Amino acid sequence: MLVISTLTAVSLMASPLVKTAKDAGLVAIPESQSVLLRLTDNVRNSITAEKVALGKQLYFDPRLSKSALISCNTCHNLAEGGDDGVSAAIGHNWTANPHHLNSPTVLNAVFFSSQFWDGRDPDLEKQAQGPIQAHPEMAATKEHVVATVTSMPEYVRSFKMAYGKDVKIDFEKVTDTIATFERTLVTPSKFDDFLNGCSGALNKEEKEGLKTFIDKGCATCHNGVALGGEMQAFGITGKYKHADLGDFKGDKNGLVKVPTLRNITKTAPYYHNGGIWSLKEAIVEMGRIQLGIKLSDKEASSIEAFLKTLDGRMPHITYPTLPASTATTPRPDAN
Amino acid sequence: MLVISTLTAVSLMASPLVKTAKDAGLVAIPESQSVLLRLTDNVRNSITAEKVALGKQLYFDPRLSKSALISCNTCHNLAEGGDDGVSAAIGHNWTANPHHLNSPTVLNAVFFSSQFWDGRDPDLEKQAQGPIQAHPEMAATKEHVVATVTSMPEYVRSFKMAYGKDVKIDFEKVTDTIATFERTLVTPSKFDDFLNGCSGALNKEEKEGLKTFIDKGCATCHNGVALGGEMQAFGITGKYKHADLGDFKGDKNGLVKVPTLRNITKTAPYYHNGGIWSLKEAIVEMGRIQLGIKLSDKEASSIEAFLKTLDGRMPHITYPTLPASTATTPRPDAN
Repeated sequence: MLVISTLTAVSLMASPLVKTAKDAGLVAIPESQSVLLRLTDNVRNSITAEKVALGKQLYFDPRLSKSALISCNTCHNLAEGGDDGVSAAIGHNWTANPHHLNSPTVLNAVFFSSQFWDGRDPDLEKQAQGPIQAHPEMAATKEHVVATVTSMPEYVRSFKMAYGKDVKIDFEKVTDTIATFERTLVTPSKFDDFLNGCSGALNKEEKEGLKTFIDKGCATCHNGVALGGEMQAFGITGKYKHADLGDFKGDKNGLVKVPTLRNITKTAPYYHNGGIWSLKEAIVEMGRIQLGIKLSDKEASSIEAFLKTLDGRMPHITYPTLPASTATTPRPDAN
Repeated sequence: MLVISTLTAVSLMASPLVKTAKDAGLVAIPESQSVLLRLTDNVRNSITAEKVALGKQLYFDPRLSKSALISCNTCHNLAEGGDDGVSAAIGHNWTANPHHLNSPTVLNAVFFSSQFWDGRDPDLEKQAQGPIQAHPEMAATKEHVVATVTSMPEYVRSFKMAYGKDVKIDFEKVTDTIATFERTLVTPSKFDDFLNGCSGALNKEEKEGLKTFIDKGCATCHNGVALGGEMQAFGITGKYKHADLGDFKGDKNGLVKVPTLRNITKTAPYYHNGGIWSLKEAIVEMGRIQLGIKLSDKEASSIEAFLKTLDGRMPHITYPTLPASTATTPRPDAN
């Protein structure tokens, strides 16, 4: 339900908070499919139905990994808010992420200005290349991925349908296709309805929470469409509690990416190190570490009430059926 | 498309092979939803839409496992023919099945007269209790499962909707509910259309394959609705090639359950030990081990052509959204 109507202007005028929120850099996800696709498209890798359908299969296909047991969806589980719900990601051979990094959600990741906690990759296309090849994650090689995909005639047919009959199925084409699917994983929420002019979408408590969120300075970093993902922030100053910090040093300036707050109720544990399980505790701790303030219990509860309005409407995903392996499909290797 | 019409009798008469197939114990899956549900129902655990929806969530929920990383779907992946496509199942802490047993498909498992390779459990309800508690699989306890499910208000609400407001959510209720979802995982195929009277559903080569399949004696063990799952057979006689047999001894008589042949093109590697990857090779080897005959290449190809007609139409599965963990949800434990 896209709320763009003659009522919009009236509603907007009835909600001074909407203007405040927009001034603070909080931007809505429009819900119309065509607007969404335009918003989430890029020039190099345009979104088409064929690419999305194929990308979904690849996203859910564990045979892209060395063991044939780990898919993109293993750590970015679309049933669990787009992540894995564990503190540090666990991949090939049951190896925990060596930097003790928490898997970020894939939902709305298309809106981030950079990918990974250290922001090292510019977009989902590039990001998708990382975990497939990382040894503690999917532990595959480019050659393994290409050999796997091209061993199955159904995949080859689908690539031809998506990119034309002369398509060269290389590693980048596979990861581009996965990223195309990921670009569709956006989750409009009650808060978007509010920003789109539906003043009644938030109740009194939630509106107060939004005001607290802005007034206390949370929106300084958690801004943009995803309420996060737009910038690198202070990061690992060594002041974190509850933290097995591993050896993660952040980006070259020691900064760590601000994560999205969308669907935050579904993506515990929190922070780049998955150090805190309670949302309210995480809010208080962020006040202390990032804003240098002590949030009262009431203020933290108020912010939490607002954050709950960011729970999104999940895309409808039909679980895919994958092509059968053939004689030339690389055999699983769990070692 | 349920093929029950006035044409049926005519088609049946036009296909003497249908009668032969039925005489050999090969029985069709009817495709009408109401017939299916009746067929796959049992008295103790009746199928309802509420139970199926909840059972699907539980089936896909990795938090039932100790690590919060392994769900039923990990080893019985509905995208991959209902199994994991590896030789021996790999579970908690990356541990391979100690008996080197291959994960059987969950698809059409409702039609088996017993569950597990040694046939030790009578139905899916009982079966579902095993892997959740097995240490090399999901490594959980009954208490963990109940604590996990009851920690999430959305799950509790769904159990009340499925079983009434006084429901006692114990381990058996959880596994019964998972089994109810599994009962719906049936996959009608071209061969069913043929048995249901649609004589043109199989082409000439496939019909010849069916004849070879029956004439050579394959249907002696691979019979019933699932073309398997009805009996324990010779099993591990020590004559298998390619086999890391582990220490699996079969049932108390040294017998191993005959697996289904439905969707066999999607469930490599084959046998209880996952010892052979090529379907044709598996056919020849079964002739040698179980029937004591040498199948020619032509005969094996003919049987293979028939087996491909058992690829089924998959149930449409919307990937579920799982309830968010709460403060009382047991924390993941990967150790």
